[in-house]
Amino acid sequence: MNQSYNHNFYLALVHYPVVNKTGDIIASAVTNLDLHDMARAGKTYGIKKFYVITPLKDQKELVEKIVLHWTEGVGGERNPDRREALDIIKVCDTFQDVIDDVKMVENSVPKVVVTSARESERSISFSGFRGIIKDSSYVLTFGTAWGLSEEFINESDYILEPVKGNSDYNHLSVRSATSIILDRVLGLK
Amino acid sequence: MNQSYNHNFYLALVHYPVVNKTGDIIASAVTNLDLHDMARAGKTYGIKKFYVITPLKDQKELVEKIVLHWTEGVGGERNPDRREALDIIKVCDTFQDVIDDVKMVENSVPKVVVTSARESERSISFSGFRGIIKDSSYVLTFGTAWGLSEEFINESDYILEPVKGNSDYNHLSVRSATSIILDRVLGLK
Repeated sequence: MNQSYNHNFYLALVHYPVVNKTGDIIASAVTNLDLHDMARAGKTYGIKKFYVITPLKDQKELVEKIVLHWTEGVGGERNPDRREALDIIKVCDTFQDVIDDVKMVENSVPKVVVTSARESERSISFSGFRGIIKDSSYVLTFGTAWGLSEEFINESDYILEPVKGNSDYNHLSVRSATSIILDRVLGLK
Repeated sequence: MNQSYNHNFYLALVHYPVVNKTGDIIASAVTNLDLHDMARAGKTYGIKKFYVITPLKDQKELVEKIVLHWTEGVGGERNPDRREALDIIKVCDTFQDVIDDVKMVENSVPKVVVTSARESERSISFSGFRGIIKDSSYVLTFGTAWGLSEEFINESDYILEPVKGNSDYNHLSVRSATSIILDRVLGLK
């Protein structure tokens, strides 16, 4: 399917390095519905590729098996819409592989945009970020488990403010957070 | 936890009457992550209660078992945030039970707001809907499978426009659609 994009946004879901409940750096397990929901949301907002990052061999194989079922196997035959979404998924060992992959396509190093449920001094508002989006490429990056490691966040180019609803409860799933943030950053206004 | 709300919104996830791929009316199966994601998103946007509608006895028991694990069982002990979210879930046999339940709390019949991936002559925009929200109560209602039955949609008070991203792909999961719509309708601007 031919589709023109009015931006150069990529999506990344990191399974390492993320933190667990007590703040230790871990490699988290892949969740099947993260792949489906984020690929579908990504496709809806014109994301060019959705990178799933895990260094674990069995987890990489799991992602590849799921993606193949929906892109080449019977899943995709029965549900072409799902095939179209999961077709944007690419598994990478490390986040550096993501950067290298985007650089090869875009001929420049992409900006890394992270999201965190924790407020940071560097946090930028959604409307502020929309206002400065330039003719660059961006990797909108989400962490699984209890979030991206502090070092990863510190090395990013932009930190988006936490999503606030209209309560003091602030524990969205990564699937919900991705959907809302894609809409806030890339939704047509 | 004490929390004040600036609106009277309820959330409902319908498993019957919904349609399947070929348009037949069916009762769909409950998906565990729908409960978690929608309860967490609902709690984030100050939803008062999240109704899960299914007439099937085994499915009702499944929902109750999941909710109990997180509200009364070890799940909630380990993860109090999850307990707080799943605590807003209530299972109902029929949608009429939802209306009756809200009526008992609010002392008036709530307005039913549906969402559909299909455009309708009656569709109202998100900003339009935000503008007419009055001092009434509302049940924001989502269908599983291939969506709410036509009759259900026709009998609703408001039909929200489909969520468009910035592509012609229009196949969000119900978890993503709920999150984006809660943000568009109830998010602080």
